[in-house]
Amino acid sequence: MGAPVSVETVVGRLNEFMGARATTARGVLDDHGRSEAYHASRPPDVVVFPESTQEVASIVRLCNELGMPVVPFGAGTSLEGNAASIAGGVCIDFARMNRVLRVNDKDLDVVVQPGITRKQLNAQLRDTGLFFPIDPGADASIGGMSSTRASGTMAVRYGTMKDNVLALEVVLADGRVIRTGSRARKSSAGYDLTRLFVGAEGTLGVITEVTLKLHPWPQAISSAVCSFARLDQAIDTAIEIIQSGIPVARMELLDEVMMRGINGYSKLGYRETPTLFFEFHGTDASVSEQAELAEAIAADHDGQGFQWARAAEDRSKLWHARDNTLYAGLSLKPGAKAMITDVCVPISRLTECLTDTRRDIDANGLIAPVVGHVGDGNFHLLILIDHDNADEVARAKALHARLVARAIAMEGTCTGEHGIGTGKMSFLADEHGEAVDVMRAVKLAIDPQQTLNPGKIFTLGARP
Amino acid sequence: MGAPVSVETVVGRLNEFMGARATTARGVLDDHGRSEAYHASRPPDVVVFPESTQEVASIVRLCNELGMPVVPFGAGTSLEGNAASIAGGVCIDFARMNRVLRVNDKDLDVVVQPGITRKQLNAQLRDTGLFFPIDPGADASIGGMSSTRASGTMAVRYGTMKDNVLALEVVLADGRVIRTGSRARKSSAGYDLTRLFVGAEGTLGVITEVTLKLHPWPQAISSAVCSFARLDQAIDTAIEIIQSGIPVARMELLDEVMMRGINGYSKLGYRETPTLFFEFHGTDASVSEQAELAEAIAADHDGQGFQWARAAEDRSKLWHARDNTLYAGLSLKPGAKAMITDVCVPISRLTECLTDTRRDIDANGLIAPVVGHVGDGNFHLLILIDHDNADEVARAKALHARLVARAIAMEGTCTGEHGIGTGKMSFLADEHGEAVDVMRAVKLAIDPQQTLNPGKIFTLGARP
Repeated sequence: MGAPVSVETVVGRLNEFMGARATTARGVLDDHGRSEAYHASRPPDVVVFPESTQEVASIVRLCNELGMPVVPFGAGTSLEGNAASIAGGVCIDFARMNRVLRVNDKDLDVVVQPGITRKQLNAQLRDTGLFFPIDPGADASIGGMSSTRASGTMAVRYGTMKDNVLALEVVLADGRVIRTGSRARKSSAGYDLTRLFVGAEGTLGVITEVTLKLHPWPQAISSAVCSFARLDQAIDTAIEIIQSGIPVARMELLDEVMMRGINGYSKLGYRETPTLFFEFHGTDASVSEQAELAEAIAADHDGQGFQWARAAEDRSKLWHARDNTLYAGLSLKPGAKAMITDVCVPISRLTECLTDTRRDIDANGLIAPVVGHVGDGNFHLLILIDHDNADEVARAKALHARLVARAIAMEGTCTGEHGIGTGKMSFLADEHGEAVDVMRAVKLAIDPQQTLNPGKIFTLGARP
Repeated sequence: MGAPVSVETVVGRLNEFMGARATTARGVLDDHGRSEAYHASRPPDVVVFPESTQEVASIVRLCNELGMPVVPFGAGTSLEGNAASIAGGVCIDFARMNRVLRVNDKDLDVVVQPGITRKQLNAQLRDTGLFFPIDPGADASIGGMSSTRASGTMAVRYGTMKDNVLALEVVLADGRVIRTGSRARKSSAGYDLTRLFVGAEGTLGVITEVTLKLHPWPQAISSAVCSFARLDQAIDTAIEIIQSGIPVARMELLDEVMMRGINGYSKLGYRETPTLFFEFHGTDASVSEQAELAEAIAADHDGQGFQWARAAEDRSKLWHARDNTLYAGLSLKPGAKAMITDVCVPISRLTECLTDTRRDIDANGLIAPVVGHVGDGNFHLLILIDHDNADEVARAKALHARLVARAIAMEGTCTGEHGIGTGKMSFLADEHGEAVDVMRAVKLAIDPQQTLNPGKIFTLGARP
């Protein structure tokens, strides 16, 4: 690599084939420099809006030659600085690569460009009888969701992005374009490159096309809500439902603090105790049976006020509370922002983990409602903090570090679905030990110039 | 690396800490040198029977230092020479590392040593209400199934090994021991090393412990059989069953040639036309409903003689035919052996792929019954060949190559579940193109001395 080149040189070269779709306009740069307030960030030097894989390949090849970092950017909804341009460079915004390329309804798959969001995709699938189930809450892009190995409320039934990405088209650091797999539903042909790039947060390649599995819309859906006097009763109910083989589609836990927020925010009268929200997918007969079986199990654990609903309007009312957890949580401390945690533990340890964590929160004078994808053992604290209060921020960060240590000690992970980004780099070695060296070796073998999303997931030596 | 060492030196060093569990006894070497007759092979130089991860680490570290190949060996049931010691060296037989280390019934997972077979595992799980569903037919070891990304008849419902391995303990080429993940059901913490080692056929590391997902035994099981005059009717039935969201647990296709073999071998009177075998898992009500829905869909496609059964004895009778496909197939050509193919295509192309293939088989004067995991688009030909007939072997190999080319042209894969081994290396680049270079880069980054299972999956330059 020669001497560092100026941003002007890079922009000039990009303008040659992209025209005004390579820009250094202040407002655009700032739009791509925003991040969660508690992670350090800066704007990129250039933002580009490619319209094809070949353009992406040209951009990446150029940057790799010139020693400019490349940061892929989807909908900007990630939570750990995953798409932050912390080293400047060229930010690739996929807003103009957001098309559905092919729906294969008999094969239950779809080929899309990475910039499409999950809601845009489902809107375009409406007439096919199929849908894409992964729902992380935010209307994230499919490329971003693939890169962070996202999941959300329906993972307990439909899996995570790792289970629903069939194949990828990826631009490598040197500009070569590869496909990581075919449209076959399964394959044993060589290393699983699809799963290597899924969750790599753009550090190994830039995703330009995603082949996703789709699922048939269930004939019927039923929803249910049930509250419990104690946390262990709620979690034991969840465990038994899974052990019984009930194919629950969603099973969400809101703790007593979150329920208090819900009641205040939405003027509702729920019990302010740990509460489970369920959704069941299947035939008419099956969703009724599932709800009845779940009710019987909840009753064995002293569940109170079990309600279930089938009609769309009634279901929507039941789930309204769960759908507004962010704003309901924030309402508990007006003016605060939420530091959102993401540990995941074996479900047998969940009661202990949550109980210890609640004690820790209270002992440190913090407010932190809990919402959990309980079937997977994954839960989020919304630690409500005033960012101008340095002491409170420090207490929140210390709480988070203890929470992660607790989860790892219980054979869990520091992140169930948000990724490492810059926000959780310090925890990766605690969780993976020497396996992080294998990750580094893979990174340097595939991106030796450290062009792709540098400074994420783990530290590396200086760029060559 | 110094001058090559003698086998005697290696054995001497191994005997120091393993005693007689490192052996060069002729019979033992030959037992580990057997392979499918149509793949070249030779026995290993040494066979070792370690009893702990630390012993495996010592063996691998030693071999890496001395430049001796290491080949992990499970139950010896792989079909593509995956565990053949083609370059000699030390074969690690996991027969003495076959224990269940921990059952976590609330978490629906189990930690096992790699040498345990799937049947041994399920026998030990009998009292837990849980089971491990992956069923490749053979009683393979869990380590071997992980390494070849195995699947089989229940993948349509329960996924493949990639979906059911939660985490691995792996010995790296330099003897370091890593864990690829926690017991959390999902994680976004860094690269997905679990999926990198699953399917790597022992070329990136030696698996010493496997954490598997388990599933609750269904309350009820029902089975069904239905035949069709034409192949497209059977496959369209399968497609519609999946599109309808019926959570079929198994759905197997036997073609008219295989049904002829079944009738002859088992003295049965089935129609000798394409036939589907089903299994449904769920509650009593649900398995009845699933069978009834499947029957209605089959009827829409002129399915004939739909039978279904719930009692274990009756189910067993129905599935008897499917359970004996290998011997029934072989009975069509007494004295022949089977060359077993393994392509997988999108299900929308399956009728075309099978029809073209049947024409190709017949035009070349070969006998090849078909059995297919039709829900996944994966099917096997049993090409019946007399290995002493060089012309017939050549015709079978040419048929296989055309079949793979046809599957890849239809966006499929050369292997759905058997792996590449030595048998399919020539097809890997056809399927993956330049992505094979990424696999090579990963291999050389993790195993730079090419110690681990050399000569498998892809070619590399000379060992350093």
